[in-house]
Amino acid sequence: MAQLFSKGQCHGIQPFIVQLRDEESHMPMKGIVIGEIGNKLGMNGVNNGYLGFEKVRIPRKNMLMKNAKLLADGTFVKPPSQALTYGTMMFVRVIIVRDTALHLAKVATIAVRYSCVRRQSHINPDQPEVQVIDHLTQQYKLFPSIARSIVFKLTSDNLWEMYNQVTSELDHGNLERLPELHAIACCLKAVTTADAAKSVETLRMACGGHGYMTCANFYNTYGFVTATCTYEGENTVLLLQTARYLIKVWNQALKGQPLGPTVQYLNSFIQSRNNRHAWIDTVPGIVKALQTVAAGKLRLANEHVEQRKKAGYTHEEAVNLTSLELAQTAEAHCRAFLVQSGHEMIEKLCQRVSPALAKVMRTVGELYAYNEALDSIGNLVRFTTISESDINRLQSKLESALLAIRPNAVSIVDGFAIPDMLLGSPLGAYDGNVYERLYEEAQKSPLNKEPVNKSFQLYLKPFMRSSL
Amino acid sequence: MAQLFSKGQCHGIQPFIVQLRDEESHMPMKGIVIGEIGNKLGMNGVNNGYLGFEKVRIPRKNMLMKNAKLLADGTFVKPPSQALTYGTMMFVRVIIVRDTALHLAKVATIAVRYSCVRRQSHINPDQPEVQVIDHLTQQYKLFPSIARSIVFKLTSDNLWEMYNQVTSELDHGNLERLPELHAIACCLKAVTTADAAKSVETLRMACGGHGYMTCANFYNTYGFVTATCTYEGENTVLLLQTARYLIKVWNQALKGQPLGPTVQYLNSFIQSRNNRHAWIDTVPGIVKALQTVAAGKLRLANEHVEQRKKAGYTHEEAVNLTSLELAQTAEAHCRAFLVQSGHEMIEKLCQRVSPALAKVMRTVGELYAYNEALDSIGNLVRFTTISESDINRLQSKLESALLAIRPNAVSIVDGFAIPDMLLGSPLGAYDGNVYERLYEEAQKSPLNKEPVNKSFQLYLKPFMRSSL
Repeated sequence: MAQLFSKGQCHGIQPFIVQLRDEESHMPMKGIVIGEIGNKLGMNGVNNGYLGFEKVRIPRKNMLMKNAKLLADGTFVKPPSQALTYGTMMFVRVIIVRDTALHLAKVATIAVRYSCVRRQSHINPDQPEVQVIDHLTQQYKLFPSIARSIVFKLTSDNLWEMYNQVTSELDHGNLERLPELHAIACCLKAVTTADAAKSVETLRMACGGHGYMTCANFYNTYGFVTATCTYEGENTVLLLQTARYLIKVWNQALKGQPLGPTVQYLNSFIQSRNNRHAWIDTVPGIVKALQTVAAGKLRLANEHVEQRKKAGYTHEEAVNLTSLELAQTAEAHCRAFLVQSGHEMIEKLCQRVSPALAKVMRTVGELYAYNEALDSIGNLVRFTTISESDINRLQSKLESALLAIRPNAVSIVDGFAIPDMLLGSPLGAYDGNVYERLYEEAQKSPLNKEPVNKSFQLYLKPFMRSSL
Repeated sequence: MAQLFSKGQCHGIQPFIVQLRDEESHMPMKGIVIGEIGNKLGMNGVNNGYLGFEKVRIPRKNMLMKNAKLLADGTFVKPPSQALTYGTMMFVRVIIVRDTALHLAKVATIAVRYSCVRRQSHINPDQPEVQVIDHLTQQYKLFPSIARSIVFKLTSDNLWEMYNQVTSELDHGNLERLPELHAIACCLKAVTTADAAKSVETLRMACGGHGYMTCANFYNTYGFVTATCTYEGENTVLLLQTARYLIKVWNQALKGQPLGPTVQYLNSFIQSRNNRHAWIDTVPGIVKALQTVAAGKLRLANEHVEQRKKAGYTHEEAVNLTSLELAQTAEAHCRAFLVQSGHEMIEKLCQRVSPALAKVMRTVGELYAYNEALDSIGNLVRFTTISESDINRLQSKLESALLAIRPNAVSIVDGFAIPDMLLGSPLGAYDGNVYERLYEEAQKSPLNKEPVNKSFQLYLKPFMRSSL
């Protein structure tokens, strides 16, 4: 990707294909400065490099001209829509959401299995130390991540369908739903990767000191997951992309224009004259409540942008000064979508599984929704009629969902069917032989190859004998 | 530490000193199985080991008997107070809070300096790309961590004074304030380490892909900081320790007994008949509001424990079933203390510095308080009279505090006076030569030692020539 200048004008970044090394010798081509950037927090198998060009000429035909074009006379031909370049980026973001779900399933499997083997602390003092999974605080660290993993996976399926539909419309020249898909893909990538990164660390810490060991395989997974918060669109930048779309459609909705499916709730919000939403603590009720939160926050953010413009700031300055609220609005929009999509996809699944499995799946969806609602409690109080006793009831529903998942937790992660080789963790193997496997892993340490390290004779013993 | 059994009775864990290796040969003593546990996420300079005893006899005199004692005839003598064993643990926790502040100061320095050098995205489209520190979202990632670092450091000084006072009272046989100190040290260790670990990652991600590089030194610091969430009392366990104390003093307060300084607000809460606290958006007002939140959550948690006991659960089972609320209560108690302590220590400092510096320090304290208040907005709405317009005003005060810190941010981190050698990051050096230093660091990669890696001739070239 490079800035394209033609006839003295800049046409923004465009994609080019450039030969960097000689086919015979593999030496860098003339004018190319190339190298590896060094170690990273993770993903060291990927050899990220630095690249410099010094007086390098790239023939016009090396520009990838599917969308934008450069004619032989230097005339620049714009793509039919600026949004077309977003196609591949959207595809990659859909994939990231799916991969994030899979990483999360992996670490949830490890942490849940470990928590059934590990015993620590008594609940009743006259009884033995319990499996740590019996502590409610431990369940709260484990089970929401199971739910997240499932909801993210189902939402990525949902998004994948949307993506295919929109790209097939695209092939027929219909660009209408592209901005909407771009907006939802941006915030989903941002929110799921941020939540997943946090979850990996919560799950690791739920395994205490053992989770801290490299062989436990949390850290390696964290390296992958946290990287996704930065690459393919940094998360804050993506949230602000979504917010820009939301501001645009908010103003369309104010004019009474109908909106696409992911933002239709803004039409309803405006029709209801911004009234506080009547709280109902079912999952569909929570979806509506979270949509009201997103709409309410969007109304405020839009007002604050307008106020700042009236105070003399340019539109862009006003947006920057309101960017905290804008990013939060995009996040609220995304969380409402996730709860809704999780709920709808689970209900669809439930139609073709046994009633027993459907019951478990629904509890998982409920846990996800209750947890999201309690995490947004400040916003719910601001924008819905939720009362103090509603909040206490919601807390108790969350606790009941945790206790209901407890007997099924191991079966659920077994259902992810991730083989030991992929889990790659002594803490999470199917046989549950945590301590035997940890001991085996420790034997691989070079320091354990001999009973006394040579440093004793070389340094420690003379030092102990010295008169220091 | 090992379980002490005497005359068939278990007396819990007691400290012993045991010889593990032979002084001459350094070979493990008979019956000792010892080794290194292998690589960890961080702190690999510490050789954590595993240890097994097989028929090892430990002489009675090897027990460390400052507090509990074992007489020659096997009689166990209890320590004057169970809490005495907590002494060293408390000392270590005070030190952890201080170290956490220093780690945070280090990474805040790196991220702030980098954010002044790095330019990305336009604010006004007709002007050049701005220093990333000019994006409000970036300020929100950077400046609260500066404030946290300062407030944590001042609070650790505060805690250090309390610790010295209580231990000197201890030497005179006065154990009265020990449980209170234990309770505040537990939750401070838990909350500051958890917040700091999150902050390190926020600051790293604020440096984008460059933050992801090992040489940026965020990851190494994260390894230290996140470890403190687990060692010296796992954070959730510590919060529940604090909650146990709070439940105890809550019931004392209900009986009208006066409480120690860190929990005196519970007396006021009960005297005010649990009324909603009148919201005032000054820092002392926020302290009072957060104390009301802690008291209100404590009242609820205590009620829920009692309800569960009435429903037939044992006290311990009821506590486990209420543990999510109990942990949140301890956290709320701690956050109120942090804002209060930060405020009081800053005001004390302001009396002996220039008015200009005092103004900056106060803005830092305000930013910390506004940020904590907005993070607790759900609780504030539940337990205080804060209104929708108060919330919007608070948000705008937070934004103003960020903008006020912007011109002073570099000077503040320069004021931490951490030498480049300790920062150990090309992103954060005092001279700001980020790109030159990154390039230098990259040259250290073994892959850059030769222009063409031998793998080309060995594998890649034959592969490219093959008919595959």
